[in-house]
Amino acid sequence: MTKRYQVVGIGNAIVDVLSHAEDGFLADHGIEKGIMQLIDRHRAVHLYGQTGPSVEVSGGSAANTIAGIAALGGRSAYVGKVKDDQLGAIFAHDLRAQGADYATPMAPAGAEEETGRCMIIVTPDGERSMNTYLGWSEYLSPADIDEAQMADTDWLFLEGYRFDGPDSHAAFARAIRAARGAGGRVSLTLSDPFCVERHRDAFRRMIVEDLDLLFCNRAELLSMYQTDDFDAALETAAREVDMLVCTESEHGAHVLHGGARAHAPTEPVKVVDATGAGDLFAAGYLWGITHGHPPLAAARMGNVAAGEVISHLGARPEADLRALFRARGLI
Amino acid sequence: MTKRYQVVGIGNAIVDVLSHAEDGFLADHGIEKGIMQLIDRHRAVHLYGQTGPSVEVSGGSAANTIAGIAALGGRSAYVGKVKDDQLGAIFAHDLRAQGADYATPMAPAGAEEETGRCMIIVTPDGERSMNTYLGWSEYLSPADIDEAQMADTDWLFLEGYRFDGPDSHAAFARAIRAARGAGGRVSLTLSDPFCVERHRDAFRRMIVEDLDLLFCNRAELLSMYQTDDFDAALETAAREVDMLVCTESEHGAHVLHGGARAHAPTEPVKVVDATGAGDLFAAGYLWGITHGHPPLAAARMGNVAAGEVISHLGARPEADLRALFRARGLI
Repeated sequence: MTKRYQVVGIGNAIVDVLSHAEDGFLADHGIEKGIMQLIDRHRAVHLYGQTGPSVEVSGGSAANTIAGIAALGGRSAYVGKVKDDQLGAIFAHDLRAQGADYATPMAPAGAEEETGRCMIIVTPDGERSMNTYLGWSEYLSPADIDEAQMADTDWLFLEGYRFDGPDSHAAFARAIRAARGAGGRVSLTLSDPFCVERHRDAFRRMIVEDLDLLFCNRAELLSMYQTDDFDAALETAAREVDMLVCTESEHGAHVLHGGARAHAPTEPVKVVDATGAGDLFAAGYLWGITHGHPPLAAARMGNVAAGEVISHLGARPEADLRALFRARGLI
Repeated sequence: MTKRYQVVGIGNAIVDVLSHAEDGFLADHGIEKGIMQLIDRHRAVHLYGQTGPSVEVSGGSAANTIAGIAALGGRSAYVGKVKDDQLGAIFAHDLRAQGADYATPMAPAGAEEETGRCMIIVTPDGERSMNTYLGWSEYLSPADIDEAQMADTDWLFLEGYRFDGPDSHAAFARAIRAARGAGGRVSLTLSDPFCVERHRDAFRRMIVEDLDLLFCNRAELLSMYQTDDFDAALETAAREVDMLVCTESEHGAHVLHGGARAHAPTEPVKVVDATGAGDLFAAGYLWGITHGHPPLAAARMGNVAAGEVISHLGARPEADLRALFRARGLI
């Protein structure tokens, strides 16, 4: 029986606030380049006062992935928590306008915390340094998980970032149980190496016990298995999960599945803003495997989708991704 | 004595909500292409539900001009009304982060209307069709005008759009009186042909009695003087105002001043989003004349600034405008 959704994603519901700055700005404000740092509301207000003119675009890692799948015409839904405020309305609008379902109850307007946002400083090299005020997205709990929805999806896509917080652990567990109970499969992205540091044991348990597909990049994989030996880490992970997809920026993506290892190279792209590269890789890959394409072809699709999103400001696709796939003979 | 400001602008304080659509979308939703239509809150909510994924960027015609002058290093300030909500905070941040002063009191958080916003539909040809919910920007009143600030600027820059509403008429009058009383000069942009339709007599009176500099484009000028004869309209207007600058899109700008008429041609630009072309033309022009450049050179600067802003999404400059001026030998 065809399920209603091909992919349901769960993660931090975030609006991105993008501004440009020189590398010196990062040093002056104690921002570590290229990674995601969690900040509180106080620091968010202070930092916003220091950043240049900004552009606001809906973001959130898994939300970007789900938006990408919807943009490709895939049947997708998203779960993540915003407040009933202006940024929350923007976040909800952008997902639905892209064609994804989104029905997580909003926190009421009077509540103290606001919709989460991520101040992203883009340096001249296109690298992005993220400063995230989680706001309401932190309070995702089992009550926000609709078991019927989880049972009605081929794939669940979990964002490693949302592992910060005990209620969300429980929310993930509830979602996994409902999805697997109905024959659905489960995927996870490790999100970033510091996120792996914070949750290594829990992630490892999930990889071994619950996962069908693990997304990661090189740095996350090395952190996960606490080694400098990339090949060894790939082999270890491949023994623990059915399908492993590990990206290496411009060096492409490795796919390990069924005892085989393959590599999908990337095309050269001028990086304007690296935000969303991993998210859109996952979108292309998940769209591919849920539309009958073999893993290596799906990884090529992931590379093309990632290449599109880093060629402009913001982490949601602007070009017609299907047209890009067609132009490369992928569909 | 050097005044604190070179230009103080007054207008509708607006956040732009930009999305892409085919021309058919405009027809389906009764949106007239290429112009600005005022919509109420009800229509704004309805239309937002129909538009695609969006990007939010601070806008507002005179605010774009003031941001452009600040980006060029000019001493500028802005007056326009927002609410103390998330979009209002974004609007204020982006002006101040660009280096412009902005101190208009925000409407309190509990108030019913919200910060104004403009849903801008960008069609594949780069043309923009604007649907503006004015929100609190409509309530600009004489109480929002700081006479000391008006007395401390070389130029006042008034946005024709803000002529919608009796309180704002009075606010403009108060600002003009204070500026002129201290030897300041006054400029106005006609904003759009339908705005001219609504306020032709009041604009005419202002041109004759109060203005030193009039900004308009071809369609606005023809509407102002109710004629199809462009040259005749230019000559008539030039007799009524000391300095007349009339833009003609890719055909460049005409400058009429001191009995002479000159023309500044444009360079070819790929139009991504026409939003802000006139606003940034005014920024380049005002920066030029307040920095000792003759009117024709200032018009060339206006063309370059306009060319920059239409080459990307959003109505605030992204590139270094001074570097663009330098590359063309303008400074």
